[in-house]
Amino acid sequence: MDLTLYVLTDRQVSGRSHEEQVNQAIRGGATAIQLREKALPARVIVEIGKRIAAECRRSGVLFIVNDRADVAAACGADGVHVGQDDLPVDAARRIVGSAKIVGVSAGTVDEALRAQDEGADYLGVGSVFATSTKPDAGDAIGIGTFGRIARGARIPVVGIGGITADNAAEVIRAGAAGVAVIAAVVGERDIAAAAQRLRERIDAARDRR
Amino acid sequence: MDLTLYVLTDRQVSGRSHEEQVNQAIRGGATAIQLREKALPARVIVEIGKRIAAECRRSGVLFIVNDRADVAAACGADGVHVGQDDLPVDAARRIVGSAKIVGVSAGTVDEALRAQDEGADYLGVGSVFATSTKPDAGDAIGIGTFGRIARGARIPVVGIGGITADNAAEVIRAGAAGVAVIAAVVGERDIAAAAQRLRERIDAARDRR
Repeated sequence: MDLTLYVLTDRQVSGRSHEEQVNQAIRGGATAIQLREKALPARVIVEIGKRIAAECRRSGVLFIVNDRADVAAACGADGVHVGQDDLPVDAARRIVGSAKIVGVSAGTVDEALRAQDEGADYLGVGSVFATSTKPDAGDAIGIGTFGRIARGARIPVVGIGGITADNAAEVIRAGAAGVAVIAAVVGERDIAAAAQRLRERIDAARDRR
Repeated sequence: MDLTLYVLTDRQVSGRSHEEQVNQAIRGGATAIQLREKALPARVIVEIGKRIAAECRRSGVLFIVNDRADVAAACGADGVHVGQDDLPVDAARRIVGSAKIVGVSAGTVDEALRAQDEGADYLGVGSVFATSTKPDAGDAIGIGTFGRIARGARIPVVGIGGITADNAAEVIRAGAAGVAVIAAVVGERDIAAAAQRLRERIDAARDRR
């Protein structure tokens, strides 16, 4: 499970198809992909997910589906990512299977500890910085709180929310296993180049850690 | 699997909670319940679904969750109902388990035959009559087409769409295993009385069949 550069897709932010976003992000060095789609019918998301699963498999990239454990199972993803309002961790795990990955979003120390106790495989913690992509994500927790959660957790923690090539190194130095991004990759004109730039910053920050 | 009077919940149409709708519908003689909720977060739907599952179990009433196989599995429902845009039948069945029920909506002879071949346990066929509750349900297929599908199918078929106490008998006489209703029960001021009236008409039509 390599969460170094975890790219979340977004049709609205990107203006391009999920498949195109994934293809370019992987070319640029993404190590994990999350399919985020709340508007399309489940059957269509499953079809898109199957194509992305095949591409991720070919490239050795982790493939996670947002929110819907049933869709994740149906398209053969490596796992599901659930928010605090989505299925509980144990319910999600029963659906995707014990060999699969269940990631959980956490915005506070409490939520992070609880998700860890419930058996999450990794945490997406944030918003680390202010972000416009997820207006419901709440106030930024800041790098200080993020670092306390990341260093205190027994499972990998990725930072999410407002992360760019300019501040990614900070997140890694604070103890993140990786960074999760939407706009900073799929919102850029050249998705592959944006992913590559982020990846270089992350790798460099790791080498110095 | 008794689909005689299959009541679908709807917070908008009813103005009352899912639990209240279910409680009243069962008091009036509903034999099957479908929880329909697309707006609330999955975690909340699971909590509502668990309460309804417990009530249905106590009353010997079938409990089906609309659309989301993962939510159905998480709240211990008897099965899931999928539309043509939802998860494919086989994917839904893998998630809820082979002992559970997978129902499928069909609006044409073709869709009905395909769903049957794919392993659906029952079909919801319609709209039989014009309806305002599901504006996306397409034109009414009429009682003639409904009857051809119901009599041609090897699995139970319930009629749905615009069914009221005034026309329920027609649907039963056309070969339906039961009728599925939203507005005609949960949209009525007295849900239990509305369910009871419908149930009487259905039972009477069956006795004469």
